[in-house]
Amino acid sequence: MNTFFHSCEAKRAGSGPLPMLTLPSTIRNNLVAAIGEFVGTFLFLFFAFAGTQVANMSAAAVAASPGSPPDPTTVTFISLCFGLSLMANVWAFYRVTGGLFNPCVSTYTPLHNQTPYDKHETDELDGQVTLALFLVGGLPATRCIAVVIAQLLGGIAAAGVVSGLFPGPLAVNTTLGGNASVVQGLFIEMFLTAELVFVIIMVAVEKHKSTYLAPVAIGVAFTLAELVGVFFTGGSLNPARSLGPAVVNGSFPGYFWIYWVGPALGAILACGFYVLLKWLRWRECNPGQ
Amino acid sequence: MNTFFHSCEAKRAGSGPLPMLTLPSTIRNNLVAAIGEFVGTFLFLFFAFAGTQVANMSAAAVAASPGSPPDPTTVTFISLCFGLSLMANVWAFYRVTGGLFNPCVSTYTPLHNQTPYDKHETDELDGQVTLALFLVGGLPATRCIAVVIAQLLGGIAAAGVVSGLFPGPLAVNTTLGGNASVVQGLFIEMFLTAELVFVIIMVAVEKHKSTYLAPVAIGVAFTLAELVGVFFTGGSLNPARSLGPAVVNGSFPGYFWIYWVGPALGAILACGFYVLLKWLRWRECNPGQ
Amino acid sequence: MNTFFHSCEAKRAGSGPLPMLTLPSTIRNNLVAAIGEFVGTFLFLFFAFAGTQVANMSAAAVAASPGSPPDPTTVTFISLCFGLSLMANVWAFYRVTGGLFNPCVSTYTPLHNQTPYDKHETDELDGQVTLALFLVGGLPATRCIAVVIAQLLGGIAAAGVVSGLFPGPLAVNTTLGGNASVVQGLFIEMFLTAELVFVIIMVAVEKHKSTYLAPVAIGVAFTLAELVGVFFTGGSLNPARSLGPAVVNGSFPGYFWIYWVGPALGAILACGFYVLLKWLRWRECNPGQ
Amino acid sequence: MNTFFHSCEAKRAGSGPLPMLTLPSTIRNNLVAAIGEFVGTFLFLFFAFAGTQVANMSAAAVAASPGSPPDPTTVTFISLCFGLSLMANVWAFYRVTGGLFNPCVSTYTPLHNQTPYDKHETDELDGQVTLALFLVGGLPATRCIAVVIAQLLGGIAAAGVVSGLFPGPLAVNTTLGGNASVVQGLFIEMFLTAELVFVIIMVAVEKHKSTYLAPVAIGVAFTLAELVGVFFTGGSLNPARSLGPAVVNGSFPGYFWIYWVGPALGAILACGFYVLLKWLRWRECNPGQ
Repeated sequence: MNTFFHSCEAKRAGSGPLPMLTLPSTIRNNLVAAIGEFVGTFLFLFFAFAGTQVANMSAAAVAASPGSPPDPTTVTFISLCFGLSLMANVWAFYRVTGGLFNPCVSTYTPLHNQTPYDKHETDELDGQVTLALFLVGGLPATRCIAVVIAQLLGGIAAAGVVSGLFPGPLAVNTTLGGNASVVQGLFIEMFLTAELVFVIIMVAVEKHKSTYLAPVAIGVAFTLAELVGVFFTGGSLNPARSLGPAVVNGSFPGYFWIYWVGPALGAILACGFYVLLKWLRWRECNPGQ
Repeated sequence: MNTFFHSCEAKRAGSGPLPMLTLPSTIRNNLVAAIGEFVGTFLFLFFAFAGTQVANMSAAAVAASPGSPPDPTTVTFISLCFGLSLMANVWAFYRVTGGLFNPCVSTYTPLHNQTPYDKHETDELDGQVTLALFLVGGLPATRCIAVVIAQLLGGIAAAGVVSGLFPGPLAVNTTLGGNASVVQGLFIEMFLTAELVFVIIMVAVEKHKSTYLAPVAIGVAFTLAELVGVFFTGGSLNPARSLGPAVVNGSFPGYFWIYWVGPALGAILACGFYVLLKWLRWRECNPGQ
Repeated sequence: MNTFFHSCEAKRAGSGPLPMLTLPSTIRNNLVAAIGEFVGTFLFLFFAFAGTQVANMSAAAVAASPGSPPDPTTVTFISLCFGLSLMANVWAFYRVTGGLFNPCVSTYTPLHNQTPYDKHETDELDGQVTLALFLVGGLPATRCIAVVIAQLLGGIAAAGVVSGLFPGPLAVNTTLGGNASVVQGLFIEMFLTAELVFVIIMVAVEKHKSTYLAPVAIGVAFTLAELVGVFFTGGSLNPARSLGPAVVNGSFPGYFWIYWVGPALGAILACGFYVLLKWLRWRECNPGQ
Repeated sequence: MNTFFHSCEAKRAGSGPLPMLTLPSTIRNNLVAAIGEFVGTFLFLFFAFAGTQVANMSAAAVAASPGSPPDPTTVTFISLCFGLSLMANVWAFYRVTGGLFNPCVSTYTPLHNQTPYDKHETDELDGQVTLALFLVGGLPATRCIAVVIAQLLGGIAAAGVVSGLFPGPLAVNTTLGGNASVVQGLFIEMFLTAELVFVIIMVAVEKHKSTYLAPVAIGVAFTLAELVGVFFTGGSLNPARSLGPAVVNGSFPGYFWIYWVGPALGAILACGFYVLLKWLRWRECNPGQ
């Protein structure tokens, strides 16, 4: 955009394909990433939790027992709150931290580059190298750990503030419903996260003409995942989303591990399919892109 | 975008107007197309079926009998799941395979070019020639057959996984409702598919400034078609969408043919109107476009 | 975009600011405009009417009497059908005919230029001159009359096809509801149309960076107008929308004139405010746009 | 875009970073700003109030008592009306006045520049200087006062016209609900406004590739805030939105001050976090943006 920033970029990052690896990981940079992800995750989950709180105070939700059928109105309301909150806050934060807000997304994405948007002019990173870096741990772990901790703390803070700010007991925990078994819940979380992460990879990490509108695509994919998942598993897709209310309410069901393992498996599944496409050199099959 | 891909394109596809015809149809290219359409159709229908499953477990849907009036809440929920799922997955897959996910779309679109997006800079293909190629069978059939088979298998796989992964019997078959006759159902499917295919042609196949956001327009058109069609025909518009649950449930109604003939007629109708517009040289009527 | 079309434009339209006035109004050009507007208005209203039919067959709508309170679910469903149908079909038709679909819009817009989109590079027309042309009748009336007739016939055709294709009596007429008086209905139609036309002028006729996404803005504004208007007046904003079902059902209420006068007053109000802004030279107040 | 306007800009505004400060604040410029904000705020709130009126006439809303649980359908309907109305009207007015429509937004934004969109090519303003200007009052107050008065009058006019134009008593006041205390209401308004203002700053005031679609992001963020806030505080976020119906109905609750102090605190909070990010030089942490 601006000569200043271009020269700044050249000076700081060099012309190599992975600026993040050559960039000195100063305290300030890690601080911005951690603060940004903390505030961003807080805002994303604050609005998602608060909207869920409204829906779960409705007469239909209060009257529901564990065996009740789903109420499409309540599910739609919750899905809209989660989806629009992710869309708005990713749109606001993507140029600050990438707008990850999710440990299972951030273990993959920061390997590419921190802020996956608005980079048409830069060289495209090689996905296989990047994922390998992730698998062999070739990336400085400091940033990754700082970001994940900030996200988990952001989720706890959001649950705490919603609990205090809105009347009534906090009713936003993720639990199994609709007679879903633990195994079903695990795989539902896996498939839903796989879809979300694959959309993020193809729309935000891969560069093309609509990359700058990736927040819209990500919000749409997340709304969709919530419409499907809210009734059966609570639609977590994100350990930070499940951990917050569990900590504030002190309520950890025995199957709480599925909200960590399911999203992690989903992220790995999406990355695996992406690596397969790379291996098949899918770009060459559609020349002219 | 990138010098490498441009030179790659020039080397592989020549400078002719139909790169696909000169491109060697190698095993790998067909494999990418088939794998991409299989996974894409699977994901599109997995989320659409899973959302429909949630809606059809609701108290209103369970209490409904064949003669019941429509429940706008349930219809909206199902339409959102189908529409957002097509939007998100076309957005993710359009640069891999074109994101067709539908035998009635793919019999038309691949004749133009495999991936109809992001091609402002290439020569525009002549629609009349392309449709003629389709009608006279002048296009290598291998790719077309591979893609259609992949889509049908993707639909069956999606129905199977949803059936196993979510509690309760699979309730996502397309059936006639609201006292619609078979003939009415046939023509409803035809009109709905015609709208969808015409939007795809004008927004994705024709090149203009908003072509790169075609997934949004296609998702909007499909949501609309579902709002209208779900109650009367199930809103199929796609043989792969109807075949999957029918196979998994072993339930083929006597009028099952309308989910093949209706969408096919609709695609032909949309193409026919487009050919008429081409014949009238509509572009010359609005110079300056 | 393309050298051919630019040279074509130069040859046919000259370099004057109003290509439409110098363009020979051949039979073919009028034919394309008329066919395009007929089919476009038909598709827009076919989906809007069909969705309204679904909503008005619901238990809540069937049980409602003229004095019943509004049902937000039904109103939302109808508004989504109208809004998404306008969005999708304007997106598909804007480069063919401008996607007007409404006599009250087309009496204004074609004075500017037929297809108000994708024209960043052309000179901007002077709104005051154009509106004056409209008021003094300085524009060839042939095209205007052909387009309006096509729109009215498109509305009748849509109502007729929906009546035959969907079960049950056609229930999509625009009538006053919620104890709204005729005068209230007239002014509600006026304000709603004024908003829609002003958004069209500022987003589609005025040229700027998001002009190519005007179908989205127009669809949003129309959805909004329907949410407000459906309960009180049926949310017409368009004589073609009201005429179609009235003809098919042979049902013209005594206040049917408000669906012609209200939208016309609204279009004039929006144009008048735009002329005021032009007169105040609003562009100079915000230099750097 | 246009040579005339660029030369005009150069002549009027000089090449300094803050054209507004060097621009002669003529009567006409203030008049355009005031008229634009009056009409824009009127249209934004007319549609928001009218939609709320429809929702609050529904059977569920009429039957509700102060202690009733929330009705998600009504809340969604109201949120859509507010969100889509802001989206459509900001889209229409952003190039006229910036589309602020809110005293708490405008006390910040005009300090940057009047119309925060479509300015990729201009130098970026320094946020710290601008906010400091605001805090020390270094900006010509005339424009600011004129705009705020126009917004408040626009809100009153919208409430008055909706009251007269739609049947039944005006039912769009913002009141506390769901057993929310005054303190909770104050902080809910604060958090909701902080989110909205932060999205406006990052999407519209900061310049990047999607700035020209800021109306969409702002509409999404506002819809989200309404989904969360309608039940507890009425979701004001805007003194002009609360003042209008209170004046028309002559009904000022004792806690009416929270609709002035809450949004003001939220705007300050958002600006403060933005200043912190600036101070940490967040742009340098993500080179290549």
